[in-house]
Amino acid sequence: MSFETHAAVMQPNGDRYELLSPVKMPQAAAFLWNKYMMIQMNCRGYATAQFMQPEPAKYAHAPNLEAKTFMQPEQPYYAHHPGRFVYIKDEQSNDIFSVPYEPVRNKADSFVFSAGKSDISWHLQQQGLKVTWQLCLSPDEPHELWQLVVTNLSSTPRQLSIYPYFPVGYMSWMNQSARFEPQLNAIVCSSVTPYQKYPDYFKNKLLKDKTFLLAERQPDSWQCAQQPFEGEGGLHAPDALQQPELSKDDALYETPACVMQYRLQLAPGAEQRYRFVFGPALVEAEIAAARQRYFSVADGFNQAQQQYADYVAQGQGCLQITTPDKALDNFVNHWLPRQVYYHGDVNRLTTDPQTRNYLQDNMGMSYVRPQAFRTALLTALAQQHRSGEMPDGILLHPDAELKYINQVPHTDQCVWLPVCLSAYLAETNDYAVLQQKVAFSDSDEPLTVFEHLCLAMGWLLHKRDERGLSYIEQGDWCDPMNMVGYKGKGVSGWLSLAAAYALNCWADICQQLGQYEHAAQYRAEANNFNQAVNRHLWDGSWYGRGITDDNVVFGISKDVEGRIYLNPQSWAMLSGAASPEQLSVMLSEIDAQLMTPFGVQMLAPAYTAMRDDVGRVTQKHPGSAENGSVYNHAAAFYLFALYQVAQPDRAYQVLRQMLPGDDATDYLQRGQLPVYIPNYYRGAWQQLPRTAGRSSQLFNTGTVHWVYRCLIEGLFGVKGCPQGLQFNPQLPSHWPGVKLERAFRGAHFSINIRRQADLTAAQLIVNGETQADMVFSNIMPGQRYQVNVLLPA
Amino acid sequence: MSFETHAAVMQPNGDRYELLSPVKMPQAAAFLWNKYMMIQMNCRGYATAQFMQPEPAKYAHAPNLEAKTFMQPEQPYYAHHPGRFVYIKDEQSNDIFSVPYEPVRNKADSFVFSAGKSDISWHLQQQGLKVTWQLCLSPDEPHELWQLVVTNLSSTPRQLSIYPYFPVGYMSWMNQSARFEPQLNAIVCSSVTPYQKYPDYFKNKLLKDKTFLLAERQPDSWQCAQQPFEGEGGLHAPDALQQPELSKDDALYETPACVMQYRLQLAPGAEQRYRFVFGPALVEAEIAAARQRYFSVADGFNQAQQQYADYVAQGQGCLQITTPDKALDNFVNHWLPRQVYYHGDVNRLTTDPQTRNYLQDNMGMSYVRPQAFRTALLTALAQQHRSGEMPDGILLHPDAELKYINQVPHTDQCVWLPVCLSAYLAETNDYAVLQQKVAFSDSDEPLTVFEHLCLAMGWLLHKRDERGLSYIEQGDWCDPMNMVGYKGKGVSGWLSLAAAYALNCWADICQQLGQYEHAAQYRAEANNFNQAVNRHLWDGSWYGRGITDDNVVFGISKDVEGRIYLNPQSWAMLSGAASPEQLSVMLSEIDAQLMTPFGVQMLAPAYTAMRDDVGRVTQKHPGSAENGSVYNHAAAFYLFALYQVAQPDRAYQVLRQMLPGDDATDYLQRGQLPVYIPNYYRGAWQQLPRTAGRSSQLFNTGTVHWVYRCLIEGLFGVKGCPQGLQFNPQLPSHWPGVKLERAFRGAHFSINIRRQADLTAAQLIVNGETQADMVFSNIMPGQRYQVNVLLPA
Repeated sequence: MSFETHAAVMQPNGDRYELLSPVKMPQAAAFLWNKYMMIQMNCRGYATAQFMQPEPAKYAHAPNLEAKTFMQPEQPYYAHHPGRFVYIKDEQSNDIFSVPYEPVRNKADSFVFSAGKSDISWHLQQQGLKVTWQLCLSPDEPHELWQLVVTNLSSTPRQLSIYPYFPVGYMSWMNQSARFEPQLNAIVCSSVTPYQKYPDYFKNKLLKDKTFLLAERQPDSWQCAQQPFEGEGGLHAPDALQQPELSKDDALYETPACVMQYRLQLAPGAEQRYRFVFGPALVEAEIAAARQRYFSVADGFNQAQQQYADYVAQGQGCLQITTPDKALDNFVNHWLPRQVYYHGDVNRLTTDPQTRNYLQDNMGMSYVRPQAFRTALLTALAQQHRSGEMPDGILLHPDAELKYINQVPHTDQCVWLPVCLSAYLAETNDYAVLQQKVAFSDSDEPLTVFEHLCLAMGWLLHKRDERGLSYIEQGDWCDPMNMVGYKGKGVSGWLSLAAAYALNCWADICQQLGQYEHAAQYRAEANNFNQAVNRHLWDGSWYGRGITDDNVVFGISKDVEGRIYLNPQSWAMLSGAASPEQLSVMLSEIDAQLMTPFGVQMLAPAYTAMRDDVGRVTQKHPGSAENGSVYNHAAAFYLFALYQVAQPDRAYQVLRQMLPGDDATDYLQRGQLPVYIPNYYRGAWQQLPRTAGRSSQLFNTGTVHWVYRCLIEGLFGVKGCPQGLQFNPQLPSHWPGVKLERAFRGAHFSINIRRQADLTAAQLIVNGETQADMVFSNIMPGQRYQVNVLLPA
Repeated sequence: MSFETHAAVMQPNGDRYELLSPVKMPQAAAFLWNKYMMIQMNCRGYATAQFMQPEPAKYAHAPNLEAKTFMQPEQPYYAHHPGRFVYIKDEQSNDIFSVPYEPVRNKADSFVFSAGKSDISWHLQQQGLKVTWQLCLSPDEPHELWQLVVTNLSSTPRQLSIYPYFPVGYMSWMNQSARFEPQLNAIVCSSVTPYQKYPDYFKNKLLKDKTFLLAERQPDSWQCAQQPFEGEGGLHAPDALQQPELSKDDALYETPACVMQYRLQLAPGAEQRYRFVFGPALVEAEIAAARQRYFSVADGFNQAQQQYADYVAQGQGCLQITTPDKALDNFVNHWLPRQVYYHGDVNRLTTDPQTRNYLQDNMGMSYVRPQAFRTALLTALAQQHRSGEMPDGILLHPDAELKYINQVPHTDQCVWLPVCLSAYLAETNDYAVLQQKVAFSDSDEPLTVFEHLCLAMGWLLHKRDERGLSYIEQGDWCDPMNMVGYKGKGVSGWLSLAAAYALNCWADICQQLGQYEHAAQYRAEANNFNQAVNRHLWDGSWYGRGITDDNVVFGISKDVEGRIYLNPQSWAMLSGAASPEQLSVMLSEIDAQLMTPFGVQMLAPAYTAMRDDVGRVTQKHPGSAENGSVYNHAAAFYLFALYQVAQPDRAYQVLRQMLPGDDATDYLQRGQLPVYIPNYYRGAWQQLPRTAGRSSQLFNTGTVHWVYRCLIEGLFGVKGCPQGLQFNPQLPSHWPGVKLERAFRGAHFSINIRRQADLTAAQLIVNGETQADMVFSNIMPGQRYQVNVLLPA
């Protein structure tokens, strides 16, 4: 690791990550969320925020009429992208710069973008001033809490004007306006969400169509319309800043902006603090209440910040690690459980999560707040059909509707029930949940969770063709592949293997429950799936991806593009379809065809044009998203499979590639701060090296739950079992040992794992006592245990 | 008129209008169109373009994912709005400026934005160069034809780099890329329109998802991605221009842009010409064909320009005027018929025009190409229901669907049939059309046009409440008032009067056809409507607008907002509901309450908040669009009514206010070049003076057809009748006379109208012969007539 080059770009700082330039990784971003909103802040000051009412909505808009859509990867920023900025003018020299970097783009003497777990901050030194710009959220409202501190570093007094600038953008073609309300000390922007059909009026009039910027201090002047603020100077040199004060004009069907001016005399060494709250509102009374809460109640702003930090701290997970890999430690100890918690606590801020996402996101919660998985499982099963089929999305709000991809039938939803339940049961031993009774979406008669899962497994068995392979219909886990089987004949190799793995997971649970006949029967069916796949889809050195409606096998050696897909290989390892001989050649082929410096590609070679007999997958851009990318969710399945087949070194490599690597070049290529794992890095490394490795910058991804599960069950091998805690670490061969803190079933384990040269078999020593095997039973809640795990060298 | 201030802003130049600054009227724009596309060019270089495939689509996009919507008023421009630009760099000094003004915004030594009928041009002098930048369209493809001419005005040789810069924006989240294709000499940007449901794939794959910039000359370098082109310099000072040449890189899932570089050595006095074609394509073969057509065939580019000019020239109308008002002459002789022609020939480039718009837009064609109205009438009637009801939109393409507002039931569609037909019959005498047989949307049995219209009139009579007033349901002509009668009880005062007028128009036609019983019956029903309105809606000094579902009369004197509406007054004049006494007080109230310096408001005072018992009208922004604006379409109805009740001076004032007034202040306030009438000028003049008068900059408006009809039937009084041409001018009292050229039924009339002090009654003299009355019969097609009309002073 070249620390010096690395440090020139970015550095860890305790539980924060700091980026030292807004230019070198211009896409780098961090995010905050609460139950009502999320915001992604780009290092240059651009923001993408949404809040729930209950559907996702915006309170700061683009300068034009934007499409309503899901979050896009690789967000294209442009000068007028929404953001949160402050212009600072020296009144003596008329010099202007902006915080944090946009819109003026002056080079600071020093720049730090500092991503914390419950705040995002910038620390600048520029023109003899020290400036700190910090975002925190309200714990329980869609309010951004902003704080600016300006310190005079020079030895002479300074006369400054401070201009917070929060563009609000094009709110509505039907109605938009803005004005300063002195009694609120806020700029209030109003609009009416457009509609055509009158029933929408009654819904829309409850929407928070106002956007406000509420200030602690009374500004000296203000301006509410974008265009006159900019004038001919443009965003980088707004005309309005050339005047002694802002115009105090309102906006009348003009693009609104919230701009205030504070005149500031600053003695040498002195500092001044400004605080603002930015967010949406239905009526002005809500803004008045916010003013009361944050600025009238003593310490209200600080209290809210602390409550928000407390909220985020609840997502710390059940594992702290000390390994030879400091960057991994930092990520696992601080950022990975936070990202898991975000997914599980707010379900990606959607009202209709895809069923597979909903189950996996809550699988991760097994390690953070296990009760959440239990609730999610029961919620999902209450929406199951009596036939056993699971819906494509789970509705989380009475008014929610299935949108976008959830209107396209996918065939894999049942798979995730036993697969995710296994992780929960391992962590909690809560087999009692299987006796809980739940009704169906189309039947009021409640059945037990056990019966629900049997029905789900029955559905997977039912949806097979005459060859014993699973129909793919309009898609399975791989959304874009929607035209392989839309005529009703095409089958999925991956899904057949995933069904086999799900059946085996379920058989294990049946076995544990003493349902031995069920267990035997499901294992036999899993075996049938495996045999069918081996018969129809084994291509000599790897498994094909599927067979189209027109009976074309694809993802095989004779294909020029999309020749090998990762998922069927991973799940053949999990399902037991692959023999040791098959495994060996598959791993070689994956190494040869799919591995890149930025991770393992989901398929290769990337498609460059539509292949009509394979379906829509080819319409994704080469080198990004599903097509040929390093799609981390698929990489995480592979990681999980590698631990299943005891390949710890390969596994460590795959894990490590999910984060930017050890040198600055890799960070720069990816443009990614290691504060979350993005859903993809661009692939097509051999065809398109210029763009390979780029991060999508999207933090919504099921990847993280599998990574956490791999840490628990694979790398560190501290997985629960009915008897207690089982120790089976799979450290990479170059690690001499690790130390862990593991919270488990109410107890706490301090674990020291190390290799010992003279051992032939692993040993477990708890509180000084050597155990008979690698399982520690008899766990007492509230107890602390000192554990030594000795491994053969 | 203060010519000097006026000239500092804008000047007419033959049949062109020229704007002399990009800053003083930053919104000012002109438009071009052909059958396949339209483009609105803003004076600063911003563009809004769409093409038909068959639904409207874009080939140059915003930098983010835009909503698909109808054209918005008062387009908010921002730095990255799509546009067509050229950067010019002096290679010796490194100085950069841009053509026409954006993105660099350097001040030119001289600037002219010149709006022609079939081209839009800029003429600049800057840094010792003369630069002309001109847009023309292909006559028959969605292709923009651009030409740049650079002349060295200085006495020293210049070394320049010329960079055409056509941003393409965010094409698609599914797939986008761009590269230079040497064999085409074009930058080709490719994308895939996103979709979720597989049946859309088969439609979408025929969409022209490519955008190309095709160059006549081979560039020295090029660049295809937006962000690296800009770099940290930003659009006003792109990093790429600091390099000796562009990167020649492609774009891979990066926002595309078309940028080329031409190195140019220019001797003193020398000039260089560059030509480009910009547009959409399905496959590269289309681009190759364009290259062949415009750049390989000798004179291909010039030929296309000439063919396009010929196309536009077909819309010259049937009237040329010479009056004391030169600005009016210029507008009527050049621009008004062009705007009528645009509407009638391409139906606003929609596949589902609103029925009322479709009929009125084609009513205007009676004066340009009368056959178009006949075709439109038959097309509309073929979509009538057998019940007599007309649909809300007319489908013009087999795949078209009713969209947006056409999904909301409106009750006025039948009104426009006889009202518009009257104008056509007056112009053409084509009573034969009434015997044409047409089927229905829900019945194959064809009936005559006469019978169709009788059914339509029957529908109007049927849809009345017990008071004899017309139900408004979810709207009538006034779209936003969708909640007055959505429960099925509310009625419309305006629609009841419009129905009366329509019945009277139809009665006149029946009379002319010898259907005297029908005529009497329809006149009686018109009278019933008029009486019902007088009974329930006459408020003492004007007519109320309607009565809500909850029996609240609105648009009356006790209302604080929306106290008086213009439309019921205008149509009461047309329908005969208003007695002379009522007319007199109505006109006073309109003068007092609705007149503003920028025209007559549609209602006053403007609403400032939703009034739940009146409906959605109040949700439009105060001071724009329907709410309190000078909505020109309503003003044009008033204009038509004023001629009906012989108020020539009031009428001239209303007409004149539709164009910017006589001084620079007025131009600047409106921001409008007089090359089209916009759909509104902002109103609420007393409440919101800062923004009153602003032009919407939207050229889609039924206004122009009524203005043309008013010129023919009112101001100049040269309307057709069954016997021939009737002369009844209503000149404003301060005009001594006018000269006209009138094309009519294949003959040509040179008409000299003048006041004569000693006359007591008007006199008509044709080819020297004084006529018995004011009608000239016996018109011989192909003949030219010299006409003198003498009016009493």
